[in-house]
Amino acid sequence: MVYQLFYWPTIQGRGEFVRLALEEAQAPYVDVARQKNGINALTTAMATAARPSFAPPFLVAGEQTIGQTANILLFLGTTHGLAPRARTASLWIHQLQLTIADLVAEVHDTHHPVSTSLFYEDQKREAKRHASGFTAERVPKYFDYFEGVLAASGSAGYFNGARVSYVDLSMFQVIAGLRYAFPNAMARIAPGYPRLAALHDLVAARPNIAAYLASTRRIRFNQDGIFRHYPELDR
Amino acid sequence: MVYQLFYWPTIQGRGEFVRLALEEAQAPYVDVARQKNGINALTTAMATAARPSFAPPFLVAGEQTIGQTANILLFLGTTHGLAPRARTASLWIHQLQLTIADLVAEVHDTHHPVSTSLFYEDQKREAKRHASGFTAERVPKYFDYFEGVLAASGSAGYFNGARVSYVDLSMFQVIAGLRYAFPNAMARIAPGYPRLAALHDLVAARPNIAAYLASTRRIRFNQDGIFRHYPELDR
Repeated sequence: MVYQLFYWPTIQGRGEFVRLALEEAQAPYVDVARQKNGINALTTAMATAARPSFAPPFLVAGEQTIGQTANILLFLGTTHGLAPRARTASLWIHQLQLTIADLVAEVHDTHHPVSTSLFYEDQKREAKRHASGFTAERVPKYFDYFEGVLAASGSAGYFNGARVSYVDLSMFQVIAGLRYAFPNAMARIAPGYPRLAALHDLVAARPNIAAYLASTRRIRFNQDGIFRHYPELDR
Repeated sequence: MVYQLFYWPTIQGRGEFVRLALEEAQAPYVDVARQKNGINALTTAMATAARPSFAPPFLVAGEQTIGQTANILLFLGTTHGLAPRARTASLWIHQLQLTIADLVAEVHDTHHPVSTSLFYEDQKREAKRHASGFTAERVPKYFDYFEGVLAASGSAGYFNGARVSYVDLSMFQVIAGLRYAFPNAMARIAPGYPRLAALHDLVAARPNIAAYLASTRRIRFNQDGIFRHYPELDR
């Protein structure tokens, strides 16, 4: 079976967490909206799915359509050995993923604190206030948490010990994205979190991920995704 | 086994979604922080759990500690028959729950669009802008989605047909909360969504839920939770 991933074609966004899992698993997939007439295919699938999603990304796996990023990863983790099998450990990895989802939502709010339907330029003042609290307080709070979890997970470096799981791939993406969006803030913050930096490098060096990152399948960071670099938000 | 629920003692907040599931299932639980010295117990448990949570709520089930609201519900759903057993249907219910979580985060942002560490009074101007877009655009967008899903779920009224699941309890809470926070906006919006209103009433009339709502275990809506009534945000 070939999966069909439906997500916006020009950004990494939330779809990137799914792409990384598919690439690590070497699961065959088509990134539908990036094909010819792909946006039409995306909007048609949104409107006609028996179990529709509120928003992309969603994944079609045979007869099944699965939405919500963390939920798609829950499915792929089980199917492709990217999550522990035991119920307790599986819930724990999912808990970490949902915490990453909360962090990602806060990243998005740094440039769109008032409304997603307004342009950044129309909420720049609010964005400045939001971003300064985000980098000064929220990122360190999340990083304290994840660094502590890694410290308790042993020396192998992944959240689940020696076995990579989808949450490691997602954490890589968050660190890479924050470095892109807030290089100054991250230069100040990052030295306090050696385990997170090591996890980023461990994931980036995995053969399937390294090949993906070097390919044209990896969309570059840009100013339309979740992680955006506005110098005025990163003093 | 008696569950231990850890959540802030004076608000419904995200803990309420867990309380509703525990009450519907008639699962024995202690709402720890509402007991004597409960806040100490909460902060101690936060700091010492082998698998800590970034924030409350979290649930202790024997040896296991489970955090993130939707993840706790995933666990309780399986354990107490509050979710379908089949993998595909189980993921679907979880997908809906995660979409509710997104909506709940947007509700919180109506009064705290800039920062959770500032008082409402310090972000009132931004809150007004956010809340007006929220009630005019976002609530109808979410309601369109959920009403459509209910329409496709058959005439029995629940998201999973005739069987109640945790997501129905959560949807009840969201509707009740929005009615409290935005009575004027909801009076305008709600008539367009008869299935959501019927679901609210179906859940409220379930014997275990009705008994809970009438009890002192149900904390009243107030100005410290997620759903807050500020008249200036609800013109």
